[in-house]
Amino acid sequence: MRFASRIRPASPSGRSSWDIHSVAEEMMAKGEEVIVLTVGDSDFASPKAAVDAVTDSLARGRTYYTAPAGDDPLRATIARQQSRLIGREIAPEQVIVTVGAQNALLIASLCLLDPGDEVIVPEPLYSTYPGTLGLAGARMVTVASPAAQDFHPQVDAIAAAITPRTRAIFLATPNNPTGAVYRQDELRRIGDICKQHDLWLVSDEVYAGIVYEGHHFSAGSLADIADRTVTIGSLSKSHAMAGWRLGWMVAPLALARQAERVSTWVTFGIPTFIQDAAVVALETQPDGMPELKEAYARRRQLFCDRLMNVPGVVPHWPEGGMFVMLDVSGSGLPAYEFAMGLVREKRVATVPSDDFGASAQGYLRVNLGAADALIEEAAARIADYAFALHEEKATPTPA
Amino acid sequence: MRFASRIRPASPSGRSSWDIHSVAEEMMAKGEEVIVLTVGDSDFASPKAAVDAVTDSLARGRTYYTAPAGDDPLRATIARQQSRLIGREIAPEQVIVTVGAQNALLIASLCLLDPGDEVIVPEPLYSTYPGTLGLAGARMVTVASPAAQDFHPQVDAIAAAITPRTRAIFLATPNNPTGAVYRQDELRRIGDICKQHDLWLVSDEVYAGIVYEGHHFSAGSLADIADRTVTIGSLSKSHAMAGWRLGWMVAPLALARQAERVSTWVTFGIPTFIQDAAVVALETQPDGMPELKEAYARRRQLFCDRLMNVPGVVPHWPEGGMFVMLDVSGSGLPAYEFAMGLVREKRVATVPSDDFGASAQGYLRVNLGAADALIEEAAARIADYAFALHEEKATPTPA
Repeated sequence: MRFASRIRPASPSGRSSWDIHSVAEEMMAKGEEVIVLTVGDSDFASPKAAVDAVTDSLARGRTYYTAPAGDDPLRATIARQQSRLIGREIAPEQVIVTVGAQNALLIASLCLLDPGDEVIVPEPLYSTYPGTLGLAGARMVTVASPAAQDFHPQVDAIAAAITPRTRAIFLATPNNPTGAVYRQDELRRIGDICKQHDLWLVSDEVYAGIVYEGHHFSAGSLADIADRTVTIGSLSKSHAMAGWRLGWMVAPLALARQAERVSTWVTFGIPTFIQDAAVVALETQPDGMPELKEAYARRRQLFCDRLMNVPGVVPHWPEGGMFVMLDVSGSGLPAYEFAMGLVREKRVATVPSDDFGASAQGYLRVNLGAADALIEEAAARIADYAFALHEEKATPTPA
Repeated sequence: MRFASRIRPASPSGRSSWDIHSVAEEMMAKGEEVIVLTVGDSDFASPKAAVDAVTDSLARGRTYYTAPAGDDPLRATIARQQSRLIGREIAPEQVIVTVGAQNALLIASLCLLDPGDEVIVPEPLYSTYPGTLGLAGARMVTVASPAAQDFHPQVDAIAAAITPRTRAIFLATPNNPTGAVYRQDELRRIGDICKQHDLWLVSDEVYAGIVYEGHHFSAGSLADIADRTVTIGSLSKSHAMAGWRLGWMVAPLALARQAERVSTWVTFGIPTFIQDAAVVALETQPDGMPELKEAYARRRQLFCDRLMNVPGVVPHWPEGGMFVMLDVSGSGLPAYEFAMGLVREKRVATVPSDDFGASAQGYLRVNLGAADALIEEAAARIADYAFALHEEKATPTPA
């Protein structure tokens, strides 16, 4: 039986960055202890106020359908938060509640992109982007954000990548996987390009609350492109609520009206009691959980300090987000082989960044969402592993 | 700014079947009491065991990401239930957990349909189908299931509607809105057509547990088309859990593998603790809530009996599902005007079925998910309204 042509085959190599995660799961199923630093999940518990709100909401019988675009109180709460963040008034009708940020990316893609349209995405990029854009039939055009530029967007290269088929620029700031926090001047210049070439700007800002260097600047702050800007947020990272699947998009009103219709066809709405809990989470901790940000900052330091002078590996200090990019190209192994050896020999699971784009080749993505002691232990094991590779290289194989 | 061309404008008339629901909401916001029989929601509370399971799951810290296609225990539970229903072994890997049945319809559409492909759908049909198929760029081709045939599928007409572009048949049994429970021989013949013309069959069976006449026969039972059949289910109707947004699709393995990838891009998974609760709901009440089915059967009787001999209206006794189709064509008013007058004058909100297809013109869809007393009161008010219209017609306007 034939599938739709938008369902392209998986990676031709048959290899995926997530193979290492699968190996870790198999090892753990056999009872082995593995430090898993792959998926962008947190070791923090979700806020107690949100957990309690679920029980309250269920006790009040809130188990019925709600409006597909989201309940009014939640849309109003998100609008207030976004207005405060960007210093410009956002109406509740501009907010569409979604199944996490991923679902917002999909709805934006379906609303904006025709088959054959091109979307410019700075790479390294979050690994679901090609699939998501592909569901709308769009073609992803990547533009390098090289490590030498601290993974920041190269605005001139973005401008040079525009063709008559370009319809949108999708970006993520703070970036996943690199942690680059795009600067105001960079976003302004990208905004100017969008205005000049009549493009949409879709800005995935789920790590907005987790910034170590500088400040988060939201694309939503750019008033002169407000009519062509979509910002995406979620509770997954800021509130350690990844498993709740609660996100949103903020869009100009005309687009939000279409996205509302599309949400009817995509999900017919979000669980009622989760929306009630989301209101509580956002009202009690509008800037996310401070202890979470502090912990990630501390772990970033622990991890990067430990690996600063280890041969063959170079940690890249992230400006934000919950990941460290670790350059392992000096080890003599490709990232995939390094990561596969590391999980098998040292029981530390990371994500080789091959799928995140050319600028991420030779890097591992390391999640900071694990207890300090585990982060330290993981760094020590990575150091051991890198030292051993270094010794191997230094010692000529006997004839 | 331009949207994707798949985002077609809303109904050119600017009118929608849901206008009556909106009027009811406005009236209620002003403090008026309205009997709302529009949305397919239930007056029943969700099962206590499921509600308790959420609290338990949250207490166990189940707030982290899970596999996008669903947690293993839930996939296994659904596979067991489906195997029992169709008398054929379904593997857990064939099950994809979704945000309600609507999301399963979307994922099936995105996996199977290319832009320009045609999908045959018997009408009357559920009103999200055109939008959902449209997101995949497919064209819906409707085939009438006339009231005179009790809204059952006209298999010869379906065969006659096939063109070289036909890729799939989408149907719903028990049907929404009509309640027609498709017979085994009808589904066998439709299955033969699919085999003969190399089509997919997508069978939406969310009302499987609610049948008054005959028995539900699942398209999944047709072993000879198992490689081309998708069945869709949910907890929304059988377990009064509409607001939980938990559904699933069961597909041949090759398709399920693609749907798993697509679910990564559509939602990145379903809330963990809702999946835990779904396991409990399905294990404690594998056939749904019996008291719910009994209540709907009783209300069907109350409603239809009351309106049997009222001039201008004819209730159609549904074989299954949670709706009664009420023929109001004898009233002299189109269904939309009848429903609009009914909500404004008698405070009973129903859905005029114009959007459900040509065979549903002149009908109202009436939801049975409200307390017996409300169903009786609604029927009485409809009778009053119909009598008044009848009197008006009978009395010539004075010159």
